[in-house]
Amino acid sequence: MVESSSDDILADADKVDVAFLVVGDPYGCVGSPHTSRERESEGSGIVANQWYYRATTHTDLVLRARELSIPTRSIPNASILTSIGTTGLQLYNFGQTVSMVFFLDNWKPASFYDRIAENVRIGLHTLVLLDIKVKEQSLENMARGRKIYEPPRYMTVAQCAAQMIEVEEEIKMEGVYGRESLAVGVARVGSENEKIVAGTLEELCDADLGAPLHSLVLLGRRTHDLERDFLLEFAVDKEKFRSVWARDYEGKQ
Amino acid sequence: MVESSSDDILADADKVDVAFLVVGDPYGCVGSPHTSRERESEGSGIVANQWYYRATTHTDLVLRARELSIPTRSIPNASILTSIGTTGLQLYNFGQTVSMVFFLDNWKPASFYDRIAENVRIGLHTLVLLDIKVKEQSLENMARGRKIYEPPRYMTVAQCAAQMIEVEEEIKMEGVYGRESLAVGVARVGSENEKIVAGTLEELCDADLGAPLHSLVLLGRRTHDLERDFLLEFAVDKEKFRSVWARDYEGKQ
Repeated sequence: MVESSSDDILADADKVDVAFLVVGDPYGCVGSPHTSRERESEGSGIVANQWYYRATTHTDLVLRARELSIPTRSIPNASILTSIGTTGLQLYNFGQTVSMVFFLDNWKPASFYDRIAENVRIGLHTLVLLDIKVKEQSLENMARGRKIYEPPRYMTVAQCAAQMIEVEEEIKMEGVYGRESLAVGVARVGSENEKIVAGTLEELCDADLGAPLHSLVLLGRRTHDLERDFLLEFAVDKEKFRSVWARDYEGKQ
Repeated sequence: MVESSSDDILADADKVDVAFLVVGDPYGCVGSPHTSRERESEGSGIVANQWYYRATTHTDLVLRARELSIPTRSIPNASILTSIGTTGLQLYNFGQTVSMVFFLDNWKPASFYDRIAENVRIGLHTLVLLDIKVKEQSLENMARGRKIYEPPRYMTVAQCAAQMIEVEEEIKMEGVYGRESLAVGVARVGSENEKIVAGTLEELCDADLGAPLHSLVLLGRRTHDLERDFLLEFAVDKEKFRSVWARDYEGKQ
């Protein structure tokens, strides 16, 4: 965990060059919800802000370096935030990005819904980044201080679509989106076996995109014909896609 | 121009591998407004959609390849859309991206303003991408068919800030932002001499960030203390920045 190791990372950085490598763009990193549980168990009590917390990790590291008068430089890199353009969806038409966590029976954070609602109201697409659980301890192992970790888990497009429907139909019920809202699932973007699947949220609940990492885009109504043409190739059911598009998305700017 | 050369690019792509290289992420490319004038002079009449047009160029190229049954693959790359995180502003808090063109006496397109307004209303930051004019012909040279090009021009943060104020005060006047709105100018992001300047729009009108390329971010009110702490280092006037922040941005979620 970077959060708890920043002192180590910066320990000799006033004497030698230290490189801190991340996946994707250094500032494009995704908040990871399990942080909150870990931090709770460490007694730090950062819970309400769990998303924010992780999203600011790298900013925080730079600020600490500054305090120690250690100069820093960040090197931009490719990121899902822009490579999602491989779906043919125009990056100009994306609103704020949200994250989706693995729901537990008693923990179904739905704050993503309000942000999606803001995007939907002005017709923008929403990129949904999906939960990753690595080096996760069971509560029992955590309580006993055993450093035994669960196998890594990566949320799939199907799981995300199902959770989105659950939040709409059972928790929020504001009609921000529905089973027939169009979305695009992607897997392994940028790799040779990148996969793209387009369809309604309901269809995506049954989509199998294979190995991780997955992401999902919920379409906004501010669309362009080229986006439709591009996505049609990846539609689960081309006829369905075309008819939902014509009914709910075409010329709805 | 890619738009008029896609047939050439794809000419032998069914027989040999063809790579099409771009600056930044292949789908993150910026609409360039002078396209409209060029296209007009070519008689294509694409004017109203000039922004869209260029932003869809690469999507269009892939669609044409598909028609010819030529397989394509895009390789993600670093982009200003995410490397703007070097300002310490959280990428989660950005709304849609807009572009700013060089105003002419009789041509001051203000559509960016409505999109900024949408972001401002929900408290999000707006990345403003700035105009680039390369291989631009004067109207006279264009009319006479002379392939003589003007020297390249790149919009500066100062020019962008001044045009933003002009649109607010003389054209739109809806109070979406003002001279005291906070913004961040960046130049040469990712390079060793990257520069960041934070201040009010009015202050940025006098900021000199040196050589291109420049970009600007207009701050939304949905801010985080770490964003303030990070930006303070780059403030034109730290006291002013701190007081405007406390008055207009702090706890305004």
